[in-house]
Amino acid sequence: MMAYEYNDQILVVDTGIMFPENDMLGIDYIIPDFEYLLAHRDKICGIVITHGHEDHTGAINHVVEEIHAPIYATPLTRGLLEVKLTRAGLDKKVNLNTIQAGDTLDIGPFQVEFFHVSHSIPDAVGLGITTPAGLIVHTGDYKFDPTPVDGWPTDFAKLAEFSSRGVLALMADSTNADKPGWTPSEKKIDPAFDEVFSAAPGRIIVASFASLISRMQQVANAAQRHGRKIAFVGYSMKANSTMARELGYLDISDNVFVSINDALKMPDKDIVLMCTGSQGEPSSIMGRLSSGTNRHFSVQKGDTIVLSSHPIPGNEESVFGTINRLFRRGANVIYDPLAAVHVSGHASQDEMTLMLHLVKPKYLIPIHGELRHLRQHATLAAEAGIPAENITVIENGQIVEFVDGQLRLGERIPGGYIFVDGSRVGEVGPSVVREREALARDGIVLISLTLDHNGHLREDPEIITRGFVYKRDADELIASLTEKIARAVERSTGDIHNHVVQTVRSHIFNETKSRPTVLVTLSWV
Amino acid sequence: MMAYEYNDQILVVDTGIMFPENDMLGIDYIIPDFEYLLAHRDKICGIVITHGHEDHTGAINHVVEEIHAPIYATPLTRGLLEVKLTRAGLDKKVNLNTIQAGDTLDIGPFQVEFFHVSHSIPDAVGLGITTPAGLIVHTGDYKFDPTPVDGWPTDFAKLAEFSSRGVLALMADSTNADKPGWTPSEKKIDPAFDEVFSAAPGRIIVASFASLISRMQQVANAAQRHGRKIAFVGYSMKANSTMARELGYLDISDNVFVSINDALKMPDKDIVLMCTGSQGEPSSIMGRLSSGTNRHFSVQKGDTIVLSSHPIPGNEESVFGTINRLFRRGANVIYDPLAAVHVSGHASQDEMTLMLHLVKPKYLIPIHGELRHLRQHATLAAEAGIPAENITVIENGQIVEFVDGQLRLGERIPGGYIFVDGSRVGEVGPSVVREREALARDGIVLISLTLDHNGHLREDPEIITRGFVYKRDADELIASLTEKIARAVERSTGDIHNHVVQTVRSHIFNETKSRPTVLVTLSWV
Repeated sequence: MMAYEYNDQILVVDTGIMFPENDMLGIDYIIPDFEYLLAHRDKICGIVITHGHEDHTGAINHVVEEIHAPIYATPLTRGLLEVKLTRAGLDKKVNLNTIQAGDTLDIGPFQVEFFHVSHSIPDAVGLGITTPAGLIVHTGDYKFDPTPVDGWPTDFAKLAEFSSRGVLALMADSTNADKPGWTPSEKKIDPAFDEVFSAAPGRIIVASFASLISRMQQVANAAQRHGRKIAFVGYSMKANSTMARELGYLDISDNVFVSINDALKMPDKDIVLMCTGSQGEPSSIMGRLSSGTNRHFSVQKGDTIVLSSHPIPGNEESVFGTINRLFRRGANVIYDPLAAVHVSGHASQDEMTLMLHLVKPKYLIPIHGELRHLRQHATLAAEAGIPAENITVIENGQIVEFVDGQLRLGERIPGGYIFVDGSRVGEVGPSVVREREALARDGIVLISLTLDHNGHLREDPEIITRGFVYKRDADELIASLTEKIARAVERSTGDIHNHVVQTVRSHIFNETKSRPTVLVTLSWV
Repeated sequence: MMAYEYNDQILVVDTGIMFPENDMLGIDYIIPDFEYLLAHRDKICGIVITHGHEDHTGAINHVVEEIHAPIYATPLTRGLLEVKLTRAGLDKKVNLNTIQAGDTLDIGPFQVEFFHVSHSIPDAVGLGITTPAGLIVHTGDYKFDPTPVDGWPTDFAKLAEFSSRGVLALMADSTNADKPGWTPSEKKIDPAFDEVFSAAPGRIIVASFASLISRMQQVANAAQRHGRKIAFVGYSMKANSTMARELGYLDISDNVFVSINDALKMPDKDIVLMCTGSQGEPSSIMGRLSSGTNRHFSVQKGDTIVLSSHPIPGNEESVFGTINRLFRRGANVIYDPLAAVHVSGHASQDEMTLMLHLVKPKYLIPIHGELRHLRQHATLAAEAGIPAENITVIENGQIVEFVDGQLRLGERIPGGYIFVDGSRVGEVGPSVVREREALARDGIVLISLTLDHNGHLREDPEIITRGFVYKRDADELIASLTEKIARAVERSTGDIHNHVVQTVRSHIFNETKSRPTVLVTLSWV
């Protein structure tokens, strides 16, 4: 999420989410902190969404509930937003506007020129934003794929034209800044699919992201080449593929496309199923297939399963766990690096350098990526001739100001993560997550004491544990703990509660070398 | 851990540990279930350790406490075992025997020929085990590095000689079965280090594994070439480097080697520090440097930090988080793929095929690796001409029997994971981990009620939460919960406990869409 502000008017670009890291326990997803935009909501003149991937659209529901500015998107991106908004019952609330690559639009004080970029989804755009302070080029996610699936490469001419006008600043995708060379074309996947399809003795099941419309097209094309029918499985795969077919972004003829129910009645070697779960998510179709808990159909011996994606960092373990479980169920599993069944949608180092040479910006601000990617992008730009003092690596919340053609850093506004947990947005913060970490590490021991007015135990302490011991194995430990607690209560002269907590903690640590959370409640009668 | 058994005598090979996966909450490490060996401990005639890495030695303390068979290892492997056993106070208990590559030893009914293999640690061996049933070749971890750091390549001649005698079965390393080609030589790292050392304006800090003795040598050599001194930081780095220098496996001259205290007094550009933490472990030196909690010294602007390892699957996120934090503290961080500062110690596909052609076994049993690697190794072997029915992919606990030169599967014995948590070995199992998962996901809500003999509340319920809400933000929720509980108690006609639990669960789910663990205790007065 980025905001361009001039003279009390704000243009918002993208409304993405992030997926929680493994140590953000219990968090469903993360949205950006847009407190600044909420405080200035009346100034917002528009929201542009560059393409339909979750990390650029996923927070749209949260945004439209608070901010009522017009939204601009290309037809496919708009379709994906509509699927999402409809599912949340928010589709009637929003002012959605369709734009096309090549359009120029005045949004408040900003003249926005939308230009096509190739990426792993069709209909992605970058933005040339002419502001009174100068021309800013915002790439969005892009690659310079010479042979993209939809035959529509990134608009080199427009980028060159921007440079002829003089570009004040380039905001450019840094995701693959540590990948040397040039990202392979999406077309490179076709021969790998052909090999897999030729060798598969039975069903083929391909897992990918539900928003990877280009991949759906490639799998459908492979199905057609090899005389198979394709069915999409799962809510978002079905909804997105239906929408993309209706809008003409997914070209699958009716004699290749079948429903999952029809597919399951056909001979195994005549079908391809496409579903979600390439990241090892346990609740996805592929996750359920791997654990044998998918209701509709199961993995069977002879199935060929293709994971058409790379693990997102942090997901490797669950992806590989899923692969191992699928093998154990008798499937043959094809994944990168066994076959080139996935390529990245982002520019690699040589493409990033080409972008700099095409756009010739005065300033570079690397965007999209972890800090290590932004820094590496800065290193590449310096090597490509941008003066080091004109490259600014910033993190979320840092305001950058352009005054008289000069860049300077402004104030730092809230730019952190807002955790979404169930229906709670921002209520579960780092302190709650730290409590969850302690619980996850060693569990909890609860001691409930009933005392008479003389401070004597009325009955044996009630001891309940979760995540600490398996009760049946712990008779001895519980017995010794009961005894220690009784003695602590009898001997306590001051704060009984504190005395019992300390006694329990130290006895447990001595016996187990672990430190569960200890809670003690006292009832006085 | 593998066991070879003949006629009531057992030879054990390796005693490794595994590191817990991200969803094995709170587990410190995993040892193999060796219940079978405990039940047959009197039959064990020897334990051979093939090399000094944790995944082959880490469980040695647990094994020697129970099993008193002689242990055989090469000098460096023995030295690393001694460091470990001494730290645990177990060094006096064990019968350690030094062997050398090239030795032949009778251990019970087994004639064991130790042959050198190159790996990312010196002094690694594979085993030719002549049994009355036939000759078994056990590779251990290996690669066919033509230019290893210690100048000692894998013993091709011995492998070929085995094949001339006829090999019944090959047990071979499968770790890199999905990596095409040939693993680069360790020597390939030297130019990458030279580049880093030439460019570094200040201190260089290299993180790797404490058992990667070859890497220590390479960093020390680079230090010498570039006129820097090297210091090792942290308990295991210091202990292992001292031992390896004493035994002659680490050749660092006294005018290059300095203590960390002396190093910190020298000019920044004259020193290299080497420490642990290349996997992003928060408690390692590099982990503490990244979070600013290392006591002895801190990261400073101008430091060049090299992570000389690949993330083990599952560690990517913490490794990349560590890198980002180090960048934020002003360091320049070099890691693969930015520079070739690490290569794998395991054979890739073409080397695995070469091993098959050299040894020409009748049977192949892939070992070392996840199921996906074992399967891929089987595929490679079939392509290399081993008949499919002579390749057996098995998982832990599966007994394989050779009778009259024919392989058959025996019974399945316990072969699972034993979790080590603090001082508890095997007491924390999957059910406790599942409770921890529930606690980690949504936290816990504890309700403590004091009731009079008529079943009326004597006072307001006591509500304590951990990992569920930040109390100061939750006044409203706690107030409504208090009210619901009071009403539930008053209206309850049967099981008050159960009625309160259900009321609390459903109220919390309605308000937050989350499902914390709910515990209710009742005190009757």
